[in-house]
Amino acid sequence: MRILVSEVGPRDGLQSLKRTMSTDAKLRWIAALAESGLAEIEVGSFVHPKLLPQMADAEAVVAAARRIPGLSVLALAPNMKGVQRAVAAGVHKITIPLSASQKHSIANTRMTCEQAIEEVGRICCFRDGLPGENRPGIEIGISAAFGCSIEGDVPEDRVFEIANRLANLGVDTVGLSDGTGYANPAQVKRMFTRLRHELGERAGGAHLHNTRGQGLANVVAALEAGVTTFDASQGGLGGCPNSPGATGNIVTEDLVYLLESMGLDTGVDLDKLMQARSILAESLPGEILYGHVPDSGVRKGFRYANPNGVRSTALLIAAEACETAA
Amino acid sequence: MRILVSEVGPRDGLQSLKRTMSTDAKLRWIAALAESGLAEIEVGSFVHPKLLPQMADAEAVVAAARRIPGLSVLALAPNMKGVQRAVAAGVHKITIPLSASQKHSIANTRMTCEQAIEEVGRICCFRDGLPGENRPGIEIGISAAFGCSIEGDVPEDRVFEIANRLANLGVDTVGLSDGTGYANPAQVKRMFTRLRHELGERAGGAHLHNTRGQGLANVVAALEAGVTTFDASQGGLGGCPNSPGATGNIVTEDLVYLLESMGLDTGVDLDKLMQARSILAESLPGEILYGHVPDSGVRKGFRYANPNGVRSTALLIAAEACETAA
Repeated sequence: MRILVSEVGPRDGLQSLKRTMSTDAKLRWIAALAESGLAEIEVGSFVHPKLLPQMADAEAVVAAARRIPGLSVLALAPNMKGVQRAVAAGVHKITIPLSASQKHSIANTRMTCEQAIEEVGRICCFRDGLPGENRPGIEIGISAAFGCSIEGDVPEDRVFEIANRLANLGVDTVGLSDGTGYANPAQVKRMFTRLRHELGERAGGAHLHNTRGQGLANVVAALEAGVTTFDASQGGLGGCPNSPGATGNIVTEDLVYLLESMGLDTGVDLDKLMQARSILAESLPGEILYGHVPDSGVRKGFRYANPNGVRSTALLIAAEACETAA
Repeated sequence: MRILVSEVGPRDGLQSLKRTMSTDAKLRWIAALAESGLAEIEVGSFVHPKLLPQMADAEAVVAAARRIPGLSVLALAPNMKGVQRAVAAGVHKITIPLSASQKHSIANTRMTCEQAIEEVGRICCFRDGLPGENRPGIEIGISAAFGCSIEGDVPEDRVFEIANRLANLGVDTVGLSDGTGYANPAQVKRMFTRLRHELGERAGGAHLHNTRGQGLANVVAALEAGVTTFDASQGGLGGCPNSPGATGNIVTEDLVYLLESMGLDTGVDLDKLMQARSILAESLPGEILYGHVPDSGVRKGFRYANPNGVRSTALLIAAEACETAA
């Protein structure tokens, strides 16, 4: 079975840092990520450069990423203006932030939920009117779907009311997003099961954070519910800068290892993923990169899910492990 | 539903350190762990003090732990001699190391698998002959059940052949142990399902490590298979000292948070668990303690599974969390 790991580090990761990675370093990193076998990368955000100077080079990054054969180039755009920029730059797919929490929606996008949904309607109309070769896909991962750091609990019925409205507006896939690591596996399994039941083909993937250490536990629950697309970021880049120790996105390296170990084919070469990690580490000296597998290596006898791949783990063969009594 | 979290830090954690915690500090830590609601603690190991000087005070630690009302006091004993010491000290339950991997068995206990199984048979006979008030329970978590750092893959049929023999010898519960973080969730679900099918009431719990970041993911899979007992260590103490970054046991703090969030009652107070963590941190200055929840705090709106408990999370209310776009 094939699972899509959608790499969000160049957007979700880099936008959370105070410093800005150079365009050249971004391009080398993205090329290395794609070379590892990651088939989809969220490369930037079309927000106003005053708000996110780290993303001011989104056009240049998209243009370069588009030249990588076979790569699906994804970017975030928070509103119609951003969408128009993204389309002009030539993205394959656009992700739009939209929150199920009223207060979070206003804090994050200065729009109420209702206003944000209306904006999505306008964006879908605009997109549908574009000529075929310029027409990007639109995906939304509903933020605060599992709870909100401002409002606390978010009623599940509200999340699904929004999900259905978005699907009816023409959004291609509607997923569920947990940007603060609030989700638990019981909730993840229940909600993704319902999402697939209500939205069918338009049910999207899982955007999970590891803030409370529950990221991969939630992946297992989402797999049980039939989810086949997972966002992740290399090195877990993309935490909350105001909350020390609160790590960010689930770590691509550990996620790929998890899935491949379970017999689920990601198409990703862990060795080449480590080479991309080296580029990231060199480009952001001093930045904490998370992940266990980069330190521990793969288990002895590790095999990729697809035995026909030409992938290796030479960089990741564990040093002689020890096992203590019991 | 009730889940038993069996704390193994004072044994599995401390024995992996080069330094020795004082008996007094151990007793304060164990008392604090018990005070948090942990109903079972593995307090030490009855191995020869020359091999593990960190555990030389096992008799004194067991004697003190026995005075804590309601606490089930567990200790490891690798052979008959250790079992006799453990019984004399008054443990409630003994855990015996036994590996499904021939090479690991010899490296760890200087016995072949066959010799180790025979020793277990003698131990069960000895135990069964004790007067009722001195008769401890015997549990075994089969090491290398999910793979071995020396042999690589370990045939599953071999693990279950051993499990059945141990149950027939009179071992009360036979669980599965992953001391090197080799397990993956598909394997965990499959093997614990089979264990429960073959051993019924004698099917034991899961001893999982987080070496490759997959610890809590494996917990979710084990829960799916009906497992209700999980080993864990505070601060994830108990890694592999020769493998930097390779963290050890799954972290008690994160495990309790996971289970309670899923609506599974552990009986543990997270605030009091944090007080025990403080004692541990003071007693082992400079030691790395793992865990996400101690840094991130609990989610807004967190509730314990059992609303009738008198437990709190005052220490763990997260600082104002932030949620980035999407």
